[in-house]
Amino acid sequence: MAIETLSETLCCRGRLGFYRHASETLGLDATFGVFLPEIALSGTPVPVVHLLAGLTCTQETFFIKANAVRFAAKYNLALVATDTSPRGAGTPGEDESYDLGAGAGFYLDATAAPWAQHYRMGSYIAAELPALTEAHFPLDGQRRGIMGHSMGGHGALVHALRAPEKWKTVSAFAPIMHPAAVPWGEKAFTAYLGEDRADWRAWDATALLEAGRTHPGTILIDQGLSDQFLDRELRPELFEAAASRAGQGLRLRRHPGYDHSYWFIQTFIEDHMAHHAVGLKG
Amino acid sequence: MAIETLSETLCCRGRLGFYRHASETLGLDATFGVFLPEIALSGTPVPVVHLLAGLTCTQETFFIKANAVRFAAKYNLALVATDTSPRGAGTPGEDESYDLGAGAGFYLDATAAPWAQHYRMGSYIAAELPALTEAHFPLDGQRRGIMGHSMGGHGALVHALRAPEKWKTVSAFAPIMHPAAVPWGEKAFTAYLGEDRADWRAWDATALLEAGRTHPGTILIDQGLSDQFLDRELRPELFEAAASRAGQGLRLRRHPGYDHSYWFIQTFIEDHMAHHAVGLKG
Repeated sequence: MAIETLSETLCCRGRLGFYRHASETLGLDATFGVFLPEIALSGTPVPVVHLLAGLTCTQETFFIKANAVRFAAKYNLALVATDTSPRGAGTPGEDESYDLGAGAGFYLDATAAPWAQHYRMGSYIAAELPALTEAHFPLDGQRRGIMGHSMGGHGALVHALRAPEKWKTVSAFAPIMHPAAVPWGEKAFTAYLGEDRADWRAWDATALLEAGRTHPGTILIDQGLSDQFLDRELRPELFEAAASRAGQGLRLRRHPGYDHSYWFIQTFIEDHMAHHAVGLKG
Repeated sequence: MAIETLSETLCCRGRLGFYRHASETLGLDATFGVFLPEIALSGTPVPVVHLLAGLTCTQETFFIKANAVRFAAKYNLALVATDTSPRGAGTPGEDESYDLGAGAGFYLDATAAPWAQHYRMGSYIAAELPALTEAHFPLDGQRRGIMGHSMGGHGALVHALRAPEKWKTVSAFAPIMHPAAVPWGEKAFTAYLGEDRADWRAWDATALLEAGRTHPGTILIDQGLSDQFLDRELRPELFEAAASRAGQGLRLRRHPGYDHSYWFIQTFIEDHMAHHAVGLKG
């Protein structure tokens, strides 16, 4: 599990680095970012929050645009950010549209050809990346949270509901909340998982709640009401209803005037860092 | 002085917009960004800080990478960000290198052919952009500050020293402090201003101090000591010595371990917003 350092930079008295490794899960090189707060630079293990970005983004996007680093430093949290898909897989069709293939891995394990060989971000997020980063950096794997935006918000919800023992805290900005019921999700799931919608339910946050999978923590979600994707792609009311029926703790905040962008995320990012800090540190 | 709205987004309870207009000074369309804190959205005029970015950047860079918006909102400051050069001038050679021409206007008025026709960011920053933005937005032109990074830090220092009556407060991150004495500056000034170095002194911050031009405020400068451009291109010790001789108030902070990037800027950005808030409001 060797990693190659691409860059390391001092920021907010901590250190932000980008690294590359040969991923066994993906069968390709993968790149990720890690922010360590100052206290971790001397080796003290700290809680860690994984960041999952949205369509077209990379492992850099959350770090550059969300204003998250300053609050991770404030609350002594580490951050780990993954890429949004395998890169360089050479899968036919992976570069033809922004919402399928490269930049659009949906944080799931594809089972349908030709995607199944490399598009395995699900297992990468659930197992390889936490193990790798916790072997190389002073991260406390018993205090691990997950958050994301849009497609990455979907990823955070799904991974937290699939494995609440791995992810103690969860939050999301403007997540796709019921991918099986919206165009982005239908396109991606059909390609990655095949035509049988029954196979989609293991990777759909609302379907997981409907199947009785819940998370013991309260899920924090922020949603802008001027989000251009709200009604067509995000559908918070469906997740909210399923959470209510399942008894899932949910704090869904709706914000008039805010859109889908990182300008919205940076406005409320401190609340998310505080949510994870309280949940992970207790 | 009509402007075209390209986008407007709610952020930190204020509004960030990008706009285009036909610049008389540049003889070209120009694009700029404006952040208004919440109090200004109802029409209350607020102090304004102009942001000048460095080589290769645009009017978006400071907004995206500096974490400045949240503190402008906190201190009720407006922000105005210009592009780093004219765009689409078609001047021969303008796209051949990152440090001359497009993305590298150096915030001065070129006098040498072929640059003199369009490369007039000096007058654009000093006159047209303040007048335009103060006509269209609730900005208090009597309380106007300027700050920048690298080439833009040079721009902030030069404009504040050339016209302290226009710019009440000034600060910079890792500015080029004596362009006439370093490779970036020698290349750009030779092209824009010609071979006679006497003509360079009106656009060189250290030379302005040497000529007795000072600013009544204290200049705040932050400089990382692991900045890869420190010794070759920035030369803070030359500006510092000239400021001392001229009696210029200067707070030059040197930070071990920090580099030239916006990760450095975001670490100390609140201090700069507070510096301008105190100077403009206090």
